[in-house]
Amino acid sequence: MRVALAQLNFTVGDLEANTDRILQCAREANDQGADLTVFPELSICGYPPLDLVTTAGFRDANESQLRRLARESASLDTALVVGYCGEAGESGKAANCLACLDQGGIVFRQSKLLLPTYDVFDEARYFRAGEQTAVWEFRGRRIGLTICEDAWNDKQFWERSRYSTDPVEELARQGIDLLVNISASPYHVGRRGFRLAMFKAMAARHHMPVALVNQVGGNDQLIFDGSSFAVDGSGTLRARALSFAEDVVCWEPGSARQAPQDTWSEESAAGDTDAVYDALVLGTRDYVRKCGFSKALVGMSGGIDSALTTVIATEALGPGNVTGVAMPGPYSSEGSLIDARGTAEAMGIQFLTIGINSAYRAFEAQLAPAFKGLAPNIAEENLQARLRGTTLMALSNKFQSLVLTTGNKSELAVGYCTIYGDMCGGLAVISDVPKTLAYKLARVANERHPGGIPQSVLDKPPSAELRPDQKDSDSLPPYEVLDPILRLYVEECLSAPEIAERLGHPLEMVREIARMVDRNEYKRQQAAPGLRVTSKAFGMGRRFPIAQRHVR
Amino acid sequence: MRVALAQLNFTVGDLEANTDRILQCAREANDQGADLTVFPELSICGYPPLDLVTTAGFRDANESQLRRLARESASLDTALVVGYCGEAGESGKAANCLACLDQGGIVFRQSKLLLPTYDVFDEARYFRAGEQTAVWEFRGRRIGLTICEDAWNDKQFWERSRYSTDPVEELARQGIDLLVNISASPYHVGRRGFRLAMFKAMAARHHMPVALVNQVGGNDQLIFDGSSFAVDGSGTLRARALSFAEDVVCWEPGSARQAPQDTWSEESAAGDTDAVYDALVLGTRDYVRKCGFSKALVGMSGGIDSALTTVIATEALGPGNVTGVAMPGPYSSEGSLIDARGTAEAMGIQFLTIGINSAYRAFEAQLAPAFKGLAPNIAEENLQARLRGTTLMALSNKFQSLVLTTGNKSELAVGYCTIYGDMCGGLAVISDVPKTLAYKLARVANERHPGGIPQSVLDKPPSAELRPDQKDSDSLPPYEVLDPILRLYVEECLSAPEIAERLGHPLEMVREIARMVDRNEYKRQQAAPGLRVTSKAFGMGRRFPIAQRHVR
Repeated sequence: MRVALAQLNFTVGDLEANTDRILQCAREANDQGADLTVFPELSICGYPPLDLVTTAGFRDANESQLRRLARESASLDTALVVGYCGEAGESGKAANCLACLDQGGIVFRQSKLLLPTYDVFDEARYFRAGEQTAVWEFRGRRIGLTICEDAWNDKQFWERSRYSTDPVEELARQGIDLLVNISASPYHVGRRGFRLAMFKAMAARHHMPVALVNQVGGNDQLIFDGSSFAVDGSGTLRARALSFAEDVVCWEPGSARQAPQDTWSEESAAGDTDAVYDALVLGTRDYVRKCGFSKALVGMSGGIDSALTTVIATEALGPGNVTGVAMPGPYSSEGSLIDARGTAEAMGIQFLTIGINSAYRAFEAQLAPAFKGLAPNIAEENLQARLRGTTLMALSNKFQSLVLTTGNKSELAVGYCTIYGDMCGGLAVISDVPKTLAYKLARVANERHPGGIPQSVLDKPPSAELRPDQKDSDSLPPYEVLDPILRLYVEECLSAPEIAERLGHPLEMVREIARMVDRNEYKRQQAAPGLRVTSKAFGMGRRFPIAQRHVR
Repeated sequence: MRVALAQLNFTVGDLEANTDRILQCAREANDQGADLTVFPELSICGYPPLDLVTTAGFRDANESQLRRLARESASLDTALVVGYCGEAGESGKAANCLACLDQGGIVFRQSKLLLPTYDVFDEARYFRAGEQTAVWEFRGRRIGLTICEDAWNDKQFWERSRYSTDPVEELARQGIDLLVNISASPYHVGRRGFRLAMFKAMAARHHMPVALVNQVGGNDQLIFDGSSFAVDGSGTLRARALSFAEDVVCWEPGSARQAPQDTWSEESAAGDTDAVYDALVLGTRDYVRKCGFSKALVGMSGGIDSALTTVIATEALGPGNVTGVAMPGPYSSEGSLIDARGTAEAMGIQFLTIGINSAYRAFEAQLAPAFKGLAPNIAEENLQARLRGTTLMALSNKFQSLVLTTGNKSELAVGYCTIYGDMCGGLAVISDVPKTLAYKLARVANERHPGGIPQSVLDKPPSAELRPDQKDSDSLPPYEVLDPILRLYVEECLSAPEIAERLGHPLEMVREIARMVDRNEYKRQQAAPGLRVTSKAFGMGRRFPIAQRHVR
């Protein structure tokens, strides 16, 4: 039996186009002799469909596209496994389903049993859980079919069980020749290797071959890396699809053909950084295009964050579609303008210089009566950032070009950013990238686009340039100190005393950083959607109250 | 037996202060002879605690405050029923619990069985469900204890069951003398009457008296109305607490004392409008204060939305704490400035006039090279709104005053608002108020604050005044037509064809409005938190993808 793992990039809600794409791909796999072509979780509707699932028309459209797919694939020799949003049950909730299509018929259906409801996942909001697994008998083989989380509760692999049942174990008990898992499993650092290691252990434990087919592509904050694979019953990798690109690979369970080298299970730090870079390129491209834009604008300060964002955007959209805008103000250095222009020239993009000094003076005059007798403070600093944001948005409105924000995760965490200023934009490209990781990504960027991030940008100390001789380190600890604290507080959810002890820092210093994180929740709730690349990004997967008093 | 229904206003995460407040109130109820004092759901930690629940320190602090509460209330004759966040179980999820404290001991605990996971509720994300109900034997009575949703699955009341079990029915089957429900049930239009009617039916069906104790106060987007009550075993109202204010009422099950008139079960439209007004005042006051602010700023255009927001803010915070800011621009009319000043004078608040013309001209000049040869369009209109937003934020930064945004729900739905412009602010006071409801609220406002909203504001056609002679009706259908369409699309989740048929409108017109709603999701995801007063507000309870293509 020949199985095609068909890892496609879907647009949420574009049911007809997604189904067309599935059909096209099924025909190609058929030509390559596939007996079974497997598509990802919720392939017909894309993932995550969110509240679209609560509307009857959306669910009905899923079912009718599924029927069309069955009809229009009837002449193919390959059978299809596809994911779709099923009808609402008595509770009013839909089911997250897969269907097997063969010779024009819908021959098997299975609902997802384990519904992830944590971090970025809200499946209990949308779906009712399936009640039991069943084996699909297909051309003399017994196939176990699971959907994503169904395979993530192996009690020999996890210290703690989230759920009381293990659908994989139940299927193995029923006796199967092959386990298939269709997924919409988003990327974050290290996830590819982890996922593969988990499935290898599962295959070896149950002595059965396993194929996982994952979505690929960006949908709002989530980036699906693809990275589909198949392992044999001893847990050896036998087939592997690309990461961060569509791909279809064929695999014959039982064949001893070698897969490309198995690098993810021992991912190097350098490989991880490359993957983050690729993820951001894909996430940027898909967000811009799936929103119906082709062009993007980046405000270029001459600092590393905006240079990195510019390089990523240019790789994602092409140099003809990106415009960099330098907006020098009263405290901008000449070097910053030179550095910004350096990136633009290296990337071959349009570059505009629009100074904000006259607008700043107009505002000073306009506010003078109200501000009389008061010393300059954060108000004047933020004003400069907001005049820049307003400039970018005017260009965006005039040229139908999406503004990309350039803030990193460290800044967003502690609120070292101006709401309605440098936070203006449709997508926050590196808002889940800690500053120290931004430097590593800059090296990847420069390998691929020499000169994209000038050496002087990497050498100078970070500064917002909103008052004379300002440096980030005036207000914050060095990023090498800050980032590990933020990682433990935001990603690991540790308390300030635990972090102080683990890292050997004074409690008061850690507590002050924790307070900054908590106090700035209001800014993050109005931030542009940001691409997720860590295990815990700000955004849909992290939900804290604004008006709250708990000190962690 | 004398039961005190203690409806308090808690701050999320302020566990020690909340517990102090519970203790103080228990002592007062004790002095009034209460045998049992009942507090709302999650009273120790406030509702909704969101991701705070996922941190071990938060759960531990709940338990230690609960133990302190038991110790420090040991000398009271009254027993206490309180809600708290319980410890994490094997799955890693906490429990939404209640505890009964008597004579210094924690004598009974019960976990919530039904976990709402829809609209604004994410309880399956945070909590594991309790497995069974038990009867609490207290001083010779059998008391059934339930937590909010536990009492919302009566299959004789609802057409559809969300859950397979009905804890109230199970308790009734075990035989109880009294049912207690502790709630954090947020307000929306008509909710008070609905809730009461449901509990009356339940009490009458099972022939048992029922007491419901609800939280009161605003927490971010949610406003809890309080409105606690007790009904006897025939379903007759016997005790009732205030709406939108803290209150403690005592009730003796079995006593035939009459309650204040039962108005909610047949709420009039006028009464509902009063309630929305009260809800917005409470929500504004609590958000501003619980965020640590005392002062607020409102940009006053001379239109009804900003006038209404100003009146609400002044009632919430006091005239000394509110500043109105008029920011006339190139297309502002003289009448608008007069109207804005009229509201400010009627309300007795500080009023600033800061024109944006010189800043606008500076921007025109700064953008002239980039905009050369291009006609004025939305870019110049939005620019004016953004210069106003930037002005307000400068004042906010300088005077530590929270900006209140003034946009209504109709505008936010169709995107008739400027992101980073009039959408700037910490709280969107009327963002869940459709424009037609804003006119009704203006009448309530004027009854309470004569002249607060000048007659000319009510009479003139709505305009954003961002280009010469602009009217809202140039771009949108009249609000009397628009609002019912939006209600069906946003609140009822109907499709465009269903709405066109129900209201007798051309499909293409409804579809265009639906498209505007969908296309502007990106703005709403960066909007300030808005106070929820309808059954479906934009914000935490409505989650649609931005980059998506489904046409409803």
